[in-house]
This record gives sequence, C-alpha cells and structure tokens, in this order.
Amino acid sequence: MSGRRLQIFAPASIGNVIAGFDVLGAAIEPVDGPPLGDTVAVAASAQTELVVRGAYAKRVPTDRDANLCWRAASAVATNRGIALPTVRMTLHKGMPIGSGLGSSSASAVAGAVAMAAWLDGLTGADEDAFFRWRSAAASELLRAAGQAEAHAAGAAHLDNVAPCLLGGLQLLTPLGPRALPVPADLCWILASPRLELATKTARAVLPASLERATAIAHSANLATVVHSLHAGDLALLATGLRDLVAEPYRAALVPGFREAQSGALAAGALACSLSGAGPAVVAVAQPSNAAAIVAALTAGFAKGGVACTVNVCAIDERGARPGAGDVVDQ
Amino acid sequence: MSGRRLQIFAPASIGNVIAGFDVLGAAIEPVDGPPLGDTVAVAASAQTELVVRGAYAKRVPTDRDANLCWRAASAVATNRGIALPTVRMTLHKGMPIGSGLGSSSASAVAGAVAMAAWLDGLTGADEDAFFRWRSAAASELLRAAGQAEAHAAGAAHLDNVAPCLLGGLQLLTPLGPRALPVPADLCWILASPRLELATKTARAVLPASLERATAIAHSANLATVVHSLHAGDLALLATGLRDLVAEPYRAALVPGFREAQSGALAAGALACSLSGAGPAVVAVAQPSNAAAIVAALTAGFAKGGVACTVNVCAIDERGARPGAGDVVDQ
Repeated sequence: MSGRRLQIFAPASIGNVIAGFDVLGAAIEPVDGPPLGDTVAVAASAQTELVVRGAYAKRVPTDRDANLCWRAASAVATNRGIALPTVRMTLHKGMPIGSGLGSSSASAVAGAVAMAAWLDGLTGADEDAFFRWRSAAASELLRAAGQAEAHAAGAAHLDNVAPCLLGGLQLLTPLGPRALPVPADLCWILASPRLELATKTARAVLPASLERATAIAHSANLATVVHSLHAGDLALLATGLRDLVAEPYRAALVPGFREAQSGALAAGALACSLSGAGPAVVAVAQPSNAAAIVAALTAGFAKGGVACTVNVCAIDERGARPGAGDVVDQ
Repeated sequence: MSGRRLQIFAPASIGNVIAGFDVLGAAIEPVDGPPLGDTVAVAASAQTELVVRGAYAKRVPTDRDANLCWRAASAVATNRGIALPTVRMTLHKGMPIGSGLGSSSASAVAGAVAMAAWLDGLTGADEDAFFRWRSAAASELLRAAGQAEAHAAGAAHLDNVAPCLLGGLQLLTPLGPRALPVPADLCWILASPRLELATKTARAVLPASLERATAIAHSANLATVVHSLHAGDLALLATGLRDLVAEPYRAALVPGFREAQSGALAAGALACSLSGAGPAVVAVAQPSNAAAIVAALTAGFAKGGVACTVNVCAIDERGARPGAGDVVDQ
C-alpha cells in the first residue's frame, strides 16, 4: 500500500450572481479568515471507504450513493470505464448544506477533482503542474461534478460547479464556461441566515414560463452585466445586477430577506439579492461601503427574526486546488 | 428668409442582431456602392411643409401626422415646448419600408436629428462640431425618434433607433445604449427579398410568454455574444448568435427564409437569421466566405420563389450625420 495522499479544496460560490439565473456564477473567499469550502482527501487504503468529517458533517449523507462527493468521484471512474480504486476518501465538510453558497457543488467538485487527480498520479505538491492538469481535464471534471450535482438539484446547473472548479466569475456559454473580468477590489458580502433552503424547494416555486417582456428585460440585464464588467463601469453594473427570474418568487421563502436587501442598498450596495437559490444573500459593493453593509444585512435579518453570519468576500480566482495540509486529520 | 439649409443622413440598421431581441442593433453600410438609408433636408421656407422624394417615396405617407420623419421632428419641438419653425422638410426615402432594415427608424432619426440640429443653428459643415452636438443631444434625439417609432411599431423599441442615431453595434442597457466592440472585417450580408412585412404583423405572431428554459437559454446566448465581442472570439460569437425568441415564429412569414438560412450556413456563415422583424435576412461572416454566402442567399430565396437583392455590408460606425450634398434635389 502506497503512502500517497492527495487533498483538494473546492471553494464556496455564488450561483446566478443576481442577473444570470443558471448561467453565471462566482467562486468566493473571505477577505479575512480561512477559505470557505469543502476539502476532500484521498489516500491509499485496504478498502474503499468514505469518511465525512468537519463542522457540518452531521447533515451530510455517509451513504455513498447519496453523497455528492462520492457520486462525483464515482462518475469520474464510470466515465473512464474503470472501477473505483481502493482508497479512503475523506470529505471535510467546511460549509453548511442548503445555504445558497454552492455547498453541493463544492462537495461534488472536490470529489471529482480529487479522484481524477488521484487516478492521474498527481500529488498536488506542484501547484503549477496541478493547474495545467486541471485546465486540460476541465471538461471531464465539469461533466462528473455536474452529474453529481444533477442528482442533488434535479437537473444539471453548472453555475456553481464551473466557478467552484475554475475560480473567478464564470459565464456558461454554449462552448462551456468563460471567465469574465471583475474589478479586483469589488466586495461580495455574503449574509448567511440560520435557515436551510433546499435547492429543489427553491426551484419548485418558480413559474414554468416568463412573460416575454420579462424575459427580454432579463436578457438585457445579463448582457449589461457582461458588458459593464468588460468596460469596468460600476454604475452600469449596478443597473444590470437585478434578478427578474427568481427573486420575485423566492423572496418569500427567506424571512428577513427584503429587510436585509433594502438595508444593504440603502447602505450603498451596488446590488443585493439572493445568492443562488438562497437563503444566503449577496451584496456587491465597493470596499468603502462594506462595513455599513455588513451591519445593514445583520440588522435586516434581525428584523425578520433570523440570526445570520456575514462574510466580506473577494472573488476566489483559483478554484479547486491542492488543499491546506492542516484541514484533514486523517 | 434665411438661405440656411441642413441635410442629415441616417443609415439602415439591423434590429435584434439575431440574439438580442429588442435590445441589440447595428447600423450598416454597403461595402461597395452608396450608403443605404434615408436623408432629410431642412430649409427655411415661407410655409411649413413636408415633401417626400426618392425611389421609395410612393409608399411613404405624405400626411404629416402619419409620416415618421415629421412625427419625430414634431416630437423634438413638442418636447422642447416650442412650435415647429417655418421650414420645408424634404425626406429622401432611400430604402423600402417593411424591409427589416430599420427603414422606419432611419426616417424617424433623420427627422429628429435634422429638426434638433436646425433649431440649434447647426449647418452640418463642421462634422466634428456636429458629432459633439449629437453626443450631447443623444438622449433628446433617442426620445423623439423613439416616440415616432412607437407610433409605427405599436411600442417603442430602440434597437434600430439607437444604432441608426449613434452608429455601431448598440446594446440597450438600463442606462441607455452602449456601443459594443466589433471586429472590423466582419461582413454583414443582407438579403432583401421582394416582400414586405409590417413590424406590427411580425410582432403579432410572437407568443406572449416564453418557457423558462427558453428564456434562460436566450439570456445565455445574448451574454455570450457580448462576451465574445469583447474577447474577439468569433467561434464563440457564432454559437451565441441564435434567435430563440422570434425566428421560430416569424420564419413561416418569409418564403425562402429557411432555404436561404441553411444555404448561408453551409456556405460558411457564422450565423444567419432574420434582420429585425424581417423579411430581410442577415448573415454574419468572415470576408473570405462573403461571395459564396451572397450566392447561397440568392439561391435560397429563389427556391422559395422570391427574388432578392443582396448587399455585403460593414458596420456603419458613424450613424446619423450631415448628408451627402448630391442626394437632395431641392
């Protein structure tokens, strides 16, 4: 039995990014404090096994077939037409489920990347080599993680998976994800209320169709966001970052959301809406307004009778990567 | 009576630009041959009068209240709270109506610009001064031309008006039109079948709502177009330039369209669909494929039993401007 060991971290992410329902996502990292995400370690073992650890482990299925990390790792092997190797896979669940921060994608991406990298003999010691490998394997990794995610959400939506894997702000185009330019000092302020909202539930409230005028306004908003990012125009970005597709229907599922949103906008946020399917809320802002927005989000959720934690984040430009050595107690 | 005289040319344009229903438009000019568009001349006169001339004058209302050029000019005066000056306004209709080439916008823009420039004392002799003036007056001019266009189309859609006024490829954002970068050598091949299709008719066939999946795919296509233009990625542009909103419903209104479209794509067009509400068809292509696409479009419409003229065009970067002196025989 080899002593080889590999550990992969996959970051939290914001689905939809307000204006890009199902097609825009951003990987994020707290400006202060440790990274937010999931870590998967793979090590040679006498038997094939899955272990789940970490602060949020209790809510994660240890039944392999119900576990996203395991499903994604298995999809890698199945897609390659091989059997899973005899390994111990340890998922350190570093983020809550049903949070709106891409928790399921983080588990799926970390599982897919860890297994593919293991099969390809990587150790993660050489970061540059890892990123070259990941770039070449991106399609395979997106596919496997997407297959696992589809199991959780009912359909494959890659707006969390793509940025979680690749880092950055990713637009899902017909040719796959493409990174959009983002002003480096933009703050992404995430408020996580102590609520859980399953993506399936949040999707079920959406109507099956949109009025044509709404659909056209939605397309214009998303196009405006893409153009404003390329042009570096924050005032224009703020006008495009509106959610006409999901927010009108999901807002009622999150007590305190409207209060948090109006507070954040009054405190200078360029935009504020649900992160992914919620209940997390994201405010996009310039750094000078961050402190006031943190307070406004907290106060808003308090009005709704909900406690929340708030993280000031930046875009995580790296995505899935060899993880910090001190996370896993294997 | 002053001898002052002012003449404004407004170019043809492509509404929707395939992927951007109601929010994306491009001003165009033939690569060879004279500009395509309408010209309005204003001259001091003993009485207020409207004259319509040119190859397509017969189909244009000379009743002032039904004439887009006059309505736009009147809107300028009304919005300023003044009476129309005593002028003779001559519209030289250089393009057919109901063509899908922004004919109504060209008349409206030329009328609005000519009247506002006249009121502001411009002669058009100094082009730089004209463009500075137009930039400062853009909101007023868009509003007046849009008011006239709304009368023709049933609602204000600025996807032709904005590029016709400002030139270039214009995205309608919540803050107004913004020019998108376009590769200089891209060809916009316009096939104009000998058919007439009123915009009102073409809008009437559209359903009032879209399935959510269609609306989301539409938003992704438009966002892909915007990103690919900024990135200069023609392969990506080709995948985004699809029309899921109007083409499925309008195709049947234009005999020969499907044949022309499939022929153009087979001949190497990056994309091909209706221009605006049709019946004109636009193919986007690299110059090396232009000749084959011209032939394919002609042959495609011939299969539908329809004669057409085809123009290889480039983006008109200038928009409405002082017109060529030899157009008007006043």
